Amino acid sequence: MSFAEEATTDVPTLPETHSGIPVYLLDKARNAKAGVFDGRTKPIRDRQRLPVVPQGIERDDFLAALEDLKAKMGHEFVEINDKALKDGWYMEHPNTHDMMTILDEEELVASAVVYPSTTEEVQQIVLWANKHRIPIFPISMGRNLGYGGAAPRVRGSVTLDLGKRMNKILDINPEDYTCLVEPGVSFYALHEVLKEKGYDHMWVDTPDLGGGSILGNTLDRGVGYTPYGDHWACHSGLEVVLPTGEIIRTGMGALPGNNTWQAFPYGFGPYSDGLFSQSNFGIVTKMGMTLMPNPGGYESFMYTFQKEEDLGPLMEIIRPLRIGMILENVAQVRHVAQGIAAQGLPRSKFYQGSGSIPDEVLHTAAAESPAGDHTWAYYGMSYGPSHIRAYKLAIVDAEFLKIPGAKKVDPSTLPADDYYFSRDRIAAGIPDIHELRWVNWTPNGAHIAFSPVSPIRSADAMKLFGLGKKLHQQYGIDFFPAFIVGLREMHLIVEIVFDRDDTERKQAAMDCLRDMIDQAAALGYGEYRTHLVLMDQVASTYSWGDGALMKFNERLKDALDPNGILAPGKSGIWPKRYRGRGWEMTRESGLVSEGKGADGL
Amino acid sequence: MSFAEEATTDVPTLPETHSGIPVYLLDKARNAKAGVFDGRTKPIRDRQRLPVVPQGIERDDFLAALEDLKAKMGHEFVEINDKALKDGWYMEHPNTHDMMTILDEEELVASAVVYPSTTEEVQQIVLWANKHRIPIFPISMGRNLGYGGAAPRVRGSVTLDLGKRMNKILDINPEDYTCLVEPGVSFYALHEVLKEKGYDHMWVDTPDLGGGSILGNTLDRGVGYTPYGDHWACHSGLEVVLPTGEIIRTGMGALPGNNTWQAFPYGFGPYSDGLFSQSNFGIVTKMGMTLMPNPGGYESFMYTFQKEEDLGPLMEIIRPLRIGMILENVAQVRHVAQGIAAQGLPRSKFYQGSGSIPDEVLHTAAAESPAGDHTWAYYGMSYGPSHIRAYKLAIVDAEFLKIPGAKKVDPSTLPADDYYFSRDRIAAGIPDIHELRWVNWTPNGAHIAFSPVSPIRSADAMKLFGLGKKLHQQYGIDFFPAFIVGLREMHLIVEIVFDRDDTERKQAAMDCLRDMIDQAAALGYGEYRTHLVLMDQVASTYSWGDGALMKFNERLKDALDPNGILAPGKSGIWPKRYRGRGWEMTRESGLVSEGKGADGL
Repeated sequence: MSFAEEATTDVPTLPETHSGIPVYLLDKARNAKAGVFDGRTKPIRDRQRLPVVPQGIERDDFLAALEDLKAKMGHEFVEINDKALKDGWYMEHPNTHDMMTILDEEELVASAVVYPSTTEEVQQIVLWANKHRIPIFPISMGRNLGYGGAAPRVRGSVTLDLGKRMNKILDINPEDYTCLVEPGVSFYALHEVLKEKGYDHMWVDTPDLGGGSILGNTLDRGVGYTPYGDHWACHSGLEVVLPTGEIIRTGMGALPGNNTWQAFPYGFGPYSDGLFSQSNFGIVTKMGMTLMPNPGGYESFMYTFQKEEDLGPLMEIIRPLRIGMILENVAQVRHVAQGIAAQGLPRSKFYQGSGSIPDEVLHTAAAESPAGDHTWAYYGMSYGPSHIRAYKLAIVDAEFLKIPGAKKVDPSTLPADDYYFSRDRIAAGIPDIHELRWVNWTPNGAHIAFSPVSPIRSADAMKLFGLGKKLHQQYGIDFFPAFIVGLREMHLIVEIVFDRDDTERKQAAMDCLRDMIDQAAALGYGEYRTHLVLMDQVASTYSWGDGALMKFNERLKDALDPNGILAPGKSGIWPKRYRGRGWEMTRESGLVSEGKGADGL
Repeated sequence: MSFAEEATTDVPTLPETHSGIPVYLLDKARNAKAGVFDGRTKPIRDRQRLPVVPQGIERDDFLAALEDLKAKMGHEFVEINDKALKDGWYMEHPNTHDMMTILDEEELVASAVVYPSTTEEVQQIVLWANKHRIPIFPISMGRNLGYGGAAPRVRGSVTLDLGKRMNKILDINPEDYTCLVEPGVSFYALHEVLKEKGYDHMWVDTPDLGGGSILGNTLDRGVGYTPYGDHWACHSGLEVVLPTGEIIRTGMGALPGNNTWQAFPYGFGPYSDGLFSQSNFGIVTKMGMTLMPNPGGYESFMYTFQKEEDLGPLMEIIRPLRIGMILENVAQVRHVAQGIAAQGLPRSKFYQGSGSIPDEVLHTAAAESPAGDHTWAYYGMSYGPSHIRAYKLAIVDAEFLKIPGAKKVDPSTLPADDYYFSRDRIAAGIPDIHELRWVNWTPNGAHIAFSPVSPIRSADAMKLFGLGKKLHQQYGIDFFPAFIVGLREMHLIVEIVFDRDDTERKQAAMDCLRDMIDQAAALGYGEYRTHLVLMDQVASTYSWGDGALMKFNERLKDALDPNGILAPGKSGIWPKRYRGRGWEMTRESGLVSEGKGADGL
């Protein structure tokens, strides 16, 4: 075996963490100093009507049902959402809200949070929900930032915070390169344990932000930046509590006494794992995950490209290199605006005007940045011993430099906290959170994503880029696009950064998102994942055959969840009792204006 | 791009084919000469009761329903199974029987075969089946050899032979390395078209036998021998006719006007493709498949290992090399008995006794073979330009030669029709059928497989090998084991070769299989795939949580197929109307003795 060559980049020490989330995010003083994800003073609002109660349930019945739940689970493990929102609530408050809400923050909220500690307790909660017909919404750790965070789709749902007490790494198998985790295990936590145990031969693939749940990210079909970046494809085996309370194990987990649950995903008969991703068909309480073998060395690289229109030829170069695995990890082509925002400085430092920030301003800022002026930056990683890397890197270099003005960036010219090194860590399986810095772009910064899928082709890239730019300009929003190339497809990821306290700008962001979704769908591009409030609209674009896929999903929903208690509305799938009036589920408080989406938002 | 290096092994010309099956298999004279898969004279038996009629349906009603079907589909596209079985029937007869049946060949048979030409015609047939409550059984090409061939699970089902008329390659995308195929496209057919079009940059991964359907093999979760060997993981997008007649498209196919159906498998919301693999929840009429990029060179290698017990340390060597992709394709460790049988010579040439063929006889035969005496042979392939291969092959060589007596075989010492070259072609994406030669081991040879999944570990390999050997000896059956290492798991594949006309030996094979399944399950090993007649038993071993997974599958079955018309009993899943009496479905004729399996066989 020759997995021994030392890494070409030093492994940085991990940030200090507290229950899996970096102290970095929890420590306001330090945040303020770093200028990152700043806390804010939140006025204590009129919350007398709390807790909110789900539609169709009498307040007294609901409160009685909660007493019933407390008796089953222990009083200390059921928390009613009736507290004031304090300064920094989104870090220390229970998982009741979307910390980056695009709506009024009191809109998509839980009525209560319950903290099960075992699969059997999850089962008890599900049976309780069926008895009282109360909608429940499971979360792993509540850090689905940009897609709804901890919030439930239906206002007043009882949130199952699985991760708080179910946070064990149940198994690590250093021979098979696998692990079995509960919902509360973050990428950071697993990485730390691998290091503690001296398991240097195994890497955990990590997404842009490492503080979230491995299980939650995988079920939402999130991606990371090593060759194990397709998390869904890398999982093996689930334990699931069905909406009617039965517990199943999928794959080899259904065979008593097996020793292959994490080694072979499929088992025998229908392979049902996919049903539990991006869905409301079951609550996943355990998940097997495969770990990447240490490739025996790695080496980051970064190229810059000058012009907007370089995107087209670049995509034509990337496609065969990526499919042929010369580019071995998810290829990232990021717009210069993202790189500038990732410095963590406020927009006001660069521009004070309203409307989309002008290209000239971005180029001026870029010219002063260590990488110099450019429009697109490619961040990549090559793996293996040095002579193997050299072979691949030479091909990449020859191809990329065919684009006039393309430059390879020398990492030694970059400061230690440059965004480059964050990308470098992540592509080496080292969890990071630098990416979040761009929420500092506006005061009270938050973000929400538009993520359409397209082929890796010049025409598609230019069409999507043009569409996004046009609509951002129309709504006066700064445009932060990045193209993330999976293997045979790419996702354009557009992150809109907004001020949580600026109602007008939030409305503009929503309008822009709604338009982008509709206009992209008309061109044949659909989202791979979306925020809670956009799920109905996105699901409605997958309408082939008179909405045949949604009718199929609804048939499954009715069969598996006849009382419609589990995460109603997730991915646009409503159970019978809510069907056709999903929009009401976020409107009780009258805080949301009627809009044009399929759900009326 | 540097995918240009010439292959190190010449690409052989393809065998001539006729409607996707090699003439080799159809041409009896040539077969007899080659000594392969020989035809036989089949006495015309008493078939007066034909066609068989499914249980619970009156004969006259059934015949009237068939007339209704003929009126819809055209008389020439509905064929009643009432013909005599002629010499060589399994090659030229409609797809009504299992050509390798382990039961009496009149047991699992279709009442009729219908040949739809479009998805809409499949939909019409499904609606017809619901109207008349007639069980239907879809096949792609009927070449699921060793697992039931073309036969339906329920005697008297109407077979939908999808492949006969739905055999188009609907799309090949040379930029995305993808294709879209109908059920009748074989590995041979796709390979031929890629060659015709000059698409040398794309390979089709092929299983041991290339004459079968790509779609059918993939839905049964079959595997091949290139890095794209996990066919299920490599597919992207399905079109499915549901048991109630609705048509859905999965993944991006649900988005009208999309151009990513074959490039991105997941789409938005629950990922339901897995539901349609190894199942009876829908009829797949189109499937997207990704194609492997030409790796720029390839090079086969073969090692032999002397002793039975070398298997243990070999597995410990293989595991990290395979997970680390130094061994880049499915690793195969084949017992010498398989190599000897793959020569295509009859057993009688080596041994005339009854009982399992003695080890000494095998070793004597092996000593005279070109590779010399050994117990295990490893067949592998390295991919990429020569210097990249050299890096990986040097590691493999150093590791394998740590086992005393291990030898690398020089291919130039092997005759041109050696089994080695068949393995070489297959691992280079060139369809082949040499593997079938071992059915010539007995007169009227057929085969049936036992395929348990285990970790890639010494202890597991030795336990499974010991279990198989003990039971083969107990039942006096020759033991042909091969270990096929996926990535983190391996399948032991034991092929029992039997004489279709020898009732006693068929019973011994069944008894041996039944015992192996039960005893392996008791040790924690479960089958990944099985023959029709063993499905109930294998499904019953996946019994965790009081059979929770099967109860879940039954709930889905009842929701999706309320009339229970689609492939009842497939993978052990029975619809409500048959549940609990599945065993009756193969017993009407009284040809099958009652046994001990879950289905009474």
